[in-house]
Amino acid sequence: MAQKSLERSEPNYFGAGPAVLPTDVLQQAAYDLLSYEGDSVGIGEISHRSKPAIKVIDDTKANLTQLLNIPDTHEVFFMQGGGTTGFSSIVYNLIASNVKKTGKPGRAAYAVTGSWSKKSAEEAVRLGFDVDIVVNTKDKKFGDIPPYNEWKPLAADTAYLYVCDNETVNGTEFKSTPPADYLHEGVELVADMSSNILSKKVDVSKYGLIMAGAQKNIGLAGLTIYIIKKSLLEQANDEELKAANVPLVPIAFHYPTVVKNNSAYNTIPIFTCHILQLVTKRLIDNGGIDAIQKLNEKKAEILYGALTSYPGFYTLPVHNPAVRSNMNVVFTLPNEELEAKFVKEAASKGLSALKGHRSVGGMRASIYNAVSLHSVELLVDFVNEFAKQNAS
Amino acid sequence: MAQKSLERSEPNYFGAGPAVLPTDVLQQAAYDLLSYEGDSVGIGEISHRSKPAIKVIDDTKANLTQLLNIPDTHEVFFMQGGGTTGFSSIVYNLIASNVKKTGKPGRAAYAVTGSWSKKSAEEAVRLGFDVDIVVNTKDKKFGDIPPYNEWKPLAADTAYLYVCDNETVNGTEFKSTPPADYLHEGVELVADMSSNILSKKVDVSKYGLIMAGAQKNIGLAGLTIYIIKKSLLEQANDEELKAANVPLVPIAFHYPTVVKNNSAYNTIPIFTCHILQLVTKRLIDNGGIDAIQKLNEKKAEILYGALTSYPGFYTLPVHNPAVRSNMNVVFTLPNEELEAKFVKEAASKGLSALKGHRSVGGMRASIYNAVSLHSVELLVDFVNEFAKQNAS
Repeated sequence: MAQKSLERSEPNYFGAGPAVLPTDVLQQAAYDLLSYEGDSVGIGEISHRSKPAIKVIDDTKANLTQLLNIPDTHEVFFMQGGGTTGFSSIVYNLIASNVKKTGKPGRAAYAVTGSWSKKSAEEAVRLGFDVDIVVNTKDKKFGDIPPYNEWKPLAADTAYLYVCDNETVNGTEFKSTPPADYLHEGVELVADMSSNILSKKVDVSKYGLIMAGAQKNIGLAGLTIYIIKKSLLEQANDEELKAANVPLVPIAFHYPTVVKNNSAYNTIPIFTCHILQLVTKRLIDNGGIDAIQKLNEKKAEILYGALTSYPGFYTLPVHNPAVRSNMNVVFTLPNEELEAKFVKEAASKGLSALKGHRSVGGMRASIYNAVSLHSVELLVDFVNEFAKQNAS
Repeated sequence: MAQKSLERSEPNYFGAGPAVLPTDVLQQAAYDLLSYEGDSVGIGEISHRSKPAIKVIDDTKANLTQLLNIPDTHEVFFMQGGGTTGFSSIVYNLIASNVKKTGKPGRAAYAVTGSWSKKSAEEAVRLGFDVDIVVNTKDKKFGDIPPYNEWKPLAADTAYLYVCDNETVNGTEFKSTPPADYLHEGVELVADMSSNILSKKVDVSKYGLIMAGAQKNIGLAGLTIYIIKKSLLEQANDEELKAANVPLVPIAFHYPTVVKNNSAYNTIPIFTCHILQLVTKRLIDNGGIDAIQKLNEKKAEILYGALTSYPGFYTLPVHNPAVRSNMNVVFTLPNEELEAKFVKEAASKGLSALKGHRSVGGMRASIYNAVSLHSVELLVDFVNEFAKQNAS
């Protein structure tokens, strides 16, 4: 069992998250776990308020700022707890900002286009906030994103519109932001980018808030990135919120407190942040967002290309090619026996973690940043070969 | 900068947390970060719902159960977010349990014996719950824990009594639990053991809930251990809570949901859990709690012994020896110049992170499980030497 080397063969691993990370990043992190910058303690063993730890946090923020071209109007911070904590914390915090701005809680609008946006909307409802579902594609099995002119118009007192930019389970991805005639002045756009952060260019200035778990494209589980418009850090205080009958946010995810404490109000998992720092540094060194976006588009193109070459054999539940995810490629086969055979034969060739999410079945190939073009080419070869041998 | 070996010299590091971990644990974790059990992906890269990940969670729970002799009446689970998330989540959840049991929210009692219990009590008050402070040692600069017969009696409708078992900043530690004539039938005892978990024997059956961040004695930052009496997982539902005018717990830290999903309702940081697994396995292999408690008592004894040998020179702010922490040894010198000199000279001998918490000043030597007896002996030698050279 005990491995004694930091070498490994290329992982051809298509899991939906946590997902593969670059081997050279993990090797550096492994050394740093034991000894950081020549010291006899590792990066996970030092105080989160020590100089080296603060530098890790600051450098990671600087890397993200550079990669995503984050404007001065916005602030980056980190929290624990994944997307689920985001679902709760977003509604508490943004409504508290809206009370500050307008004197009233206002309404939260949600686009329900898959499992994750559905969960987020449900949590906002459960916590007692006023929620409008402006689009819900559940009846279409979350297989499309309708054009904005088909969405329910936003109420005048809407504080924010929430979208899940890439639905990991269902395989849809937004390719545009709402136009000005839909998202009227004063409504903040909020996006969960947990499964496509840093995979493509994003115009951060259009968003009030971006939330993204690290564990798919850019890191280990345990840290979530938030990019917030600084004006939204102005919130009504606790007394004002009580007067407005708005529930208070728990202190651990009160955004202004987290920002004021440079993401270390509670003990930030500094080893996890260090991995994020190494991954983002590597992205910068390898050509930034433009380069990785081009590569991701190429990977998606050849995989969707192969799958659509056998229309009676492979079926894409996301019928509309314009909203197919470049990260999570979801497909089915004519029957469950063939699907089981596909997964098994793929695994025998070292292509692993291709089973779809337990809630929807079928297959899913997640081709995040760290999945190489070569891995995807091997999968494409197998997709072709399997169709040729099994299509009747 | 780039280190290329997994060897290191013994860290003589006395930081209060995150803190040192056993070198052999970190070495194994470093290998497993790249490749877990011979696979070409590491333990941080696989799904939190995969078999190997579930095994890591289950094995860690089993190790904790064995080490702490956790009875069948209790359940272990993990959450992200550290003690701060605990401060909020404890009051939400335990009051929801009390509404189920009694039909009413009832009151929460807090013993404020240091910085951390103070923060926890403040959060319960802020969130709008009914709180009684039954003891507050702030006026004594948190330098003592008064006997139970001096505490304010518990109100009849008290749901739980909260204590911080070891105050990291102030250096006090509870050496007993409240007697039956104080903690009357039906009141649950809740303890924050973030800085002394697994350092000594604990009678878990006496507690309704134990909460402990991993990053001091047993792991990296990013995971918190909860040990809860199973009956407390019976909570009033959301409608009942609204009727009782009790705020709802955010879903990410709703204990029954977390337990039902084996601590993976959100994506558990599985690498961090794996380290916890390795540390607890190592404790078992090295003789369990009895052995580590004996070692910790020896370490504390020789260090307090040295400090008290120079009564005019070293001062212990915790005057009462009976409540001095075996984990965080706090002391001061006659003036700030000597304190700065102490820290500097200690560092030149490789004894690091001895500065006290920024809120109280002075010095603090944290001698958690992974700080070796040899490290403490080196510190004792220095304490003696420094006194001899500088005491006038």
